[in-house]
Amino acid sequence: MTATAPGPADGVPGSKAAARIRRAACEVFAAKGYGLATTREIAASLGMSPGAVYPHYKTKESLLFAIATEGHRAVLDALLAADDPARSPTERLRAAIASFVRWHAENRAIARVIQYELRALTDDHFELIAGLRRATTRVFTEIAEAGAASGEFSFGDVSTVTLALTSLGIDVSRWFPVRNHADADDLADDYAEIALRIVGARAAR
Amino acid sequence: MTATAPGPADGVPGSKAAARIRRAACEVFAAKGYGLATTREIAASLGMSPGAVYPHYKTKESLLFAIATEGHRAVLDALLAADDPARSPTERLRAAIASFVRWHAENRAIARVIQYELRALTDDHFELIAGLRRATTRVFTEIAEAGAASGEFSFGDVSTVTLALTSLGIDVSRWFPVRNHADADDLADDYAEIALRIVGARAAR
Repeated sequence: MTATAPGPADGVPGSKAAARIRRAACEVFAAKGYGLATTREIAASLGMSPGAVYPHYKTKESLLFAIATEGHRAVLDALLAADDPARSPTERLRAAIASFVRWHAENRAIARVIQYELRALTDDHFELIAGLRRATTRVFTEIAEAGAASGEFSFGDVSTVTLALTSLGIDVSRWFPVRNHADADDLADDYAEIALRIVGARAAR
Repeated sequence: MTATAPGPADGVPGSKAAARIRRAACEVFAAKGYGLATTREIAASLGMSPGAVYPHYKTKESLLFAIATEGHRAVLDALLAADDPARSPTERLRAAIASFVRWHAENRAIARVIQYELRALTDDHFELIAGLRRATTRVFTEIAEAGAASGEFSFGDVSTVTLALTSLGIDVSRWFPVRNHADADDLADDYAEIALRIVGARAAR
């Protein structure tokens, strides 16, 4: 999978109207769940007529797939933009986790949809999304392996630490914000330190 | 909040039939989401007539509340059973996280419902559930603080590490099992080591 910009050929219609519908759908899906949401209600939330969604998305599932594609690409893009392979693994992990956590905090409507509402996707669509998820995981795996190779990090199994690192960020979309933790930047910084501990970074602690 | 056994007065009907309905409802809620599930469908999955749920649960919401109460108590009970305050904070955290992770892996249908399907609860019911959640969080907070006080642990802010520790366990219910991580006991052991790193335990690494 690659992290290229979304286009109509990939199931993410490029028009402004289609993008507005995706944003409105995210809010409705996040608030009441994909299952109960109707395209009629999504159109109504934009002051559009009941049938206004269909020229852009033939089915509710194609709308979910477009959101899932756009959201997973946005996470991957945020991660790749933050990760500079020329830097030390410690600095790379700090930047990557901060970006990953910040994205899940700042985009929690779409984050909740793409993390918790994917069971309705068709098998083919799910497979495409799984490819994007693997690409995201791979960024963390590569950084962890680079740190192990250079001796900066010390941990057991790379797939276990990768899982823990991604869980830390993904779960943010479930609870953020809460009273003591409502600033995305502060959380990103704090979780970056925790991530360094998870991989046993020499500079941590 | 306390961790006493569930009883009818607390919204968790004690009869065997009511318990069977809760188990069936968990499967349906976890598979398609609370919103789309119907009590008719839950009854049908047990070979019961469409109205069979109502003598036990007047509304679908009261069924969700009973599941949420039962589930959150079960997590808290598992945690309290694993935590022996007479042991060292390191041993306490290892046991508590292992138990918490194992519970979310082994009970993932109810875990998914109680972690991701609570938005439909009434405000009053949500407040009761929030109390049980705070009691769970408090177990981790107390262990972390005991470790900081004894000098075994070294970390920044206790609420941040508590959040990270609980996230690690809760997110298991979203993804478990996957190909490389399908054994609940192995995962519990691995995550216990990661938890010790998160709090900066001296014995870790």
